[in-house]
Parts: sequence; C-alpha cells; structure tokens
Amino acid sequence: MIDSPTITDIEQAHARIADCVHRTPVITCAMLDEMAGRSIYFKCEHLQRVGAFKFRGASYAVSLLPQSQAAKGVCTHSSGNHAQALARAARQRDIPAWIVMPTSAPEIKRRAVEGYGATVVPCEPTLEARERVAGEVIDSTGAAFIHPYNDPRIIAGQGTAALELIEEVGALDAVMAPIGGGGLMSGTCLATAARLPKAMLVGAEPAGADDAARSLQAGALIEQKAPNTICDGLLTSLGSLTWPILRDHLAAIVTVSDDEVIKAMRLLWERAKLLVEPSSATVLAALLKETCPIPSGSRVGVILTGGNVSLDRLPWQ
Amino acid sequence: MIDSPTITDIEQAHARIADCVHRTPVITCAMLDEMAGRSIYFKCEHLQRVGAFKFRGASYAVSLLPQSQAAKGVCTHSSGNHAQALARAARQRDIPAWIVMPTSAPEIKRRAVEGYGATVVPCEPTLEARERVAGEVIDSTGAAFIHPYNDPRIIAGQGTAALELIEEVGALDAVMAPIGGGGLMSGTCLATAARLPKAMLVGAEPAGADDAARSLQAGALIEQKAPNTICDGLLTSLGSLTWPILRDHLAAIVTVSDDEVIKAMRLLWERAKLLVEPSSATVLAALLKETCPIPSGSRVGVILTGGNVSLDRLPWQ
Repeated sequence: MIDSPTITDIEQAHARIADCVHRTPVITCAMLDEMAGRSIYFKCEHLQRVGAFKFRGASYAVSLLPQSQAAKGVCTHSSGNHAQALARAARQRDIPAWIVMPTSAPEIKRRAVEGYGATVVPCEPTLEARERVAGEVIDSTGAAFIHPYNDPRIIAGQGTAALELIEEVGALDAVMAPIGGGGLMSGTCLATAARLPKAMLVGAEPAGADDAARSLQAGALIEQKAPNTICDGLLTSLGSLTWPILRDHLAAIVTVSDDEVIKAMRLLWERAKLLVEPSSATVLAALLKETCPIPSGSRVGVILTGGNVSLDRLPWQ
Repeated sequence: MIDSPTITDIEQAHARIADCVHRTPVITCAMLDEMAGRSIYFKCEHLQRVGAFKFRGASYAVSLLPQSQAAKGVCTHSSGNHAQALARAARQRDIPAWIVMPTSAPEIKRRAVEGYGATVVPCEPTLEARERVAGEVIDSTGAAFIHPYNDPRIIAGQGTAALELIEEVGALDAVMAPIGGGGLMSGTCLATAARLPKAMLVGAEPAGADDAARSLQAGALIEQKAPNTICDGLLTSLGSLTWPILRDHLAAIVTVSDDEVIKAMRLLWERAKLLVEPSSATVLAALLKETCPIPSGSRVGVILTGGNVSLDRLPWQ
C-alpha cells in the first residue's frame, strides 16, 4: 500500500520543479464572471510546457529517480498529455523514455512525443495490450514505470498548480478542476485543504465519463467502462490512490454534456482568448449550470488543464 | 502642433490606468525560440480587457478628460479594437460613447460595441463618410473625439505595455511590435528608448499595408492606399504624430506576406496556445524570416496586440 502524499510532499515538489516548469499566469475575464455570477480565477496550465499541467507531475517523478535508476530510463503507456510530459521531462534529465502508444493514436501525438526524443512503442488499442507491452519494455530495459496519475509523486506534482494559484490570488471560496484519473483533482484537494481549509472543492466531469461522480454517489470506486465524450483527457478511471482523496475532500462533482463543454470551450476562446482543450472547458461548463453548488458571488479558482487540441477542425464547426 | 509624448507621460499613464487594465502576462515558448533562433518574450495583450492593447490608450485618454467634458461623452470612428476599447473605457467612467462604424462592419463587432453600452452610429464605408458623420455627432453632442492613434494620450497609454514588459523581463536586445497607425509602435519606441537605450527597435508590417516601411525607406510619410491584407488591425496610415517617432527610433521594418502571417499565427496557437489575431502574428512571421536584422541569440520582446478573430472559420481552413 502506497501512502497518499501530503501538503509537505506538494511543497517539496514545488521547490524541486520550480526552475523547470512555467509559473503559469492566472487570468480573469469580466464577461465570463458576469455569465457565471462568480469571480473566476483561471490558472492557465494550457500555457504550461507541453501545453498541459501533466508536465508538473512528470517532472517531479523524473527528478526523484535515483541516478542508477534514472540512467535506465522511464516508461509509460499513454496517448495523451502525460506521454508528451514524460518524454519532455526525461529529455530534460537526459535519460531515455519509452512511450507505449496505441496504433490508433493520432500521428500528430506520436510525432510530438518523438519530437521530445522519446521512443514510441506501438501496441494494439486495448488496455491489456498497453499494459503488456509496457511490461515487456520495462523487463527488457529496466526503465521505471511512471503511471499517469495513480502515483504519489505525480499527485504531489499536479498539486503545485493549486499551490501557485492560491499563493497568487489568496483566499478563495471554492477550487475546481476536471476529473479524469483524478491525479490533478487529488493534488488540488490536498493543496487547497491545507492552505484554505474552508474552501469548497468541486470537480467537473463529462457525462460520458462520469465514473468519479458515480463513485462519489455510491461511496465506492466504480470503474469507467466505454467512455464516450469529446473530453479526450478525461476517459480513464480513478485509481486506488486518487479515489480515497477525492472521496474525503470533494463537496460535489458536476457532470456536463459534451454540448455544454463545447459551448464553454468556445466562450473561453472567444471571450477570454484562452486556447484550451475540451477537457479544460468542463469546469466553466459546470459553473454555468444551475446545478452547480457553489454560491453566486463566490471567488472560485479553476485549473485550466491543457491546450492540446487539433486546429484543423474546431468542435463547433 | 501637438507635442509628442515622453517617457514621463507613459509613466503617468501607467500609474493612472494600472488599476483598470490587466497586467498581462509575459509568455515564453521553447519551441518557438528554437524555430526563431532567439529568446522571445511575448507580452500578451490579447489577454488585455476587450482582447487588445487598445484598451490601454483608450482608458488613459478617457481618464484625462475634465469632468465637464467627460459628461458630454466621447466619440470615435472605428470598426476595430479601438471601437470596443473606447466603448468600454467610457462605460468604466460611466459616460456616453458614440462609435461611428461603417455599415460594412461585421455584425459581431457592432454587437460587441453595443454590449459595452455605446451607441453605434452607422455610416457609409468611406473615410470621408466616417469623418463627416463623426463630426456631426460631435457637433450635436459636444462629445470629445478620441483618435485611435494620432493622439499623445493614446500613444502614452499604448507605451505602458512595453513598460511592463521591460519591468518584468529586464534587459532585451530588441523590442518589436506590429505597425498599423503606429500608436503602439510609437509608445513602444518611447518606452524602450528610455528604459533600454541600446535595444534595437523593429516593426513588423504586412506587405499589403506597408506604408510605414515605404515611409521609412523614402524618409517621408507615405499614405496607405487600398490596403490588402488579412491583418485587419493594420490597414491604416501612419499619423502626423506617430510617423516622426517611428522615423527617429526604428532600426528596421520587416514586411511579411499574408501566407507568412497565417503560418506564424498557427504556430502561436498550436505551439504556444496563444490565441492571437492575424495582426499580432506579423511579428513572429518577421522573426522567422531570413531578412530579420535582429541577431540570432538575441533576447527579443514582442507585443502580441490582440485576439479578436472570428472562430467560425480559421484562416488556414
């Protein structure tokens, strides 16, 4: 059983990665505040290196490897932002990285990972194949496996975004983030609970991948099967480490439809000029819903998670 | 003859508007640095209120009006970012604004200006008609005319962007901005020359509206006739106030084709997640050209001017 990270771990992560991650800006937009009836502080992790908060956790995990282990490299299976983040974090330490990616992953994502100097190992597009191929890579290379979210180092790294947000804007009535595997939301919960014990913690989830909302309702971890949403960063299930943290800290999870996500994403682009991916827009979509439990007039911190989206065709076109 | 503003005017402008304008972030992007062979510091004025640096000058000009004059309101003719900026600055002081706009202006721009509480006065789409109708509005209302760039208050206000940029990143080898009427570039020149006397000042201009480049080459103000470019913020001619400032400060103007602008705009969106309008992308396009006179390895400050672009169809589609 691995221990859950603490605020001390998040503070240590922040001290360790501060030089290699961007301190991303916090942006406000009067028009969106008016629409949402609250003052929103957007922590712009789409402006983070590799275009996503994932670089925080990956950098921290890579930085903690003892030199003998680091020399053998790192490995993960991912077709998303964690893949790019780990590839780049490995390059930063000048160690090899193997990224197991399903053959179904878009060419552009494969090239981005290769662009950071990592080796892409193709596999069949099933979880079983991904895990098996990653296991084979690790057996033959001795590389360290870095899970995208169910790892205390990753959770601590992701928590540094909320730490910076709170440091910059001070007291907040609520803090929100999207929930995929729960790494970001877990780190956000731990950082916020330590710094602002009275703040309400609220997650946002697409209705087509609402395992966290269903888990919270059932009081037990429910796996996500056959997710169906435009939010390609939020398809995964919670993990054994992230689920208890969310269960113990979240006041609510607001689920949103893909139509609501697309509308919110367009608002973020058009009104606030924030070029975020659909997963990031779940939180604004949640804030625009009647069912959002955060009182109007509240000061709300929001982590905008990433900006890796195809510009060939936009979702509203 | 109106006096050119000085660094003192820009400092006064900054002190006066600091509370009502966003202190926009400065963003770097390792991948664009690599492509351009220089370290680029992007001052993100597309994240300014109304999505453009224009709010700086408009706020300052409106703030300087004596109460008796302010009560009668302000007027300008513009279909671009200055229109929205003046409308919003007027609302902030709770005074009326009349914006003369050609009937050819897109519906979305008209609605944006009305959304800020200004009165849109339609006119035929010629400069003669715009000036005549604005004159009529001023005669009948007593409103103060606020020119979009040929006004020392506007130039001083726009110069505050460079002031903040230099304050944040320190020494720079060069500072760049796009040139339309020259208000931003003039303010940028004055601020930079005062703070970093050794820095090279370089403008960027679309080839289809290259009046400043031609003026600089001829040593005399040449008007822009029949501009033809995707950079809808850069169509106007230099003014009697802005031209001498540019003449005395600029080391060079790099002209770029619309294809180069579109390519640079896509890079800014895709790699740096900066949602800028075509006019803003001229500067990166210039930095990617062989002919750009700024030595490789330089630290270059760049003002990204605005992010008001239609999201219905992107220029590369």
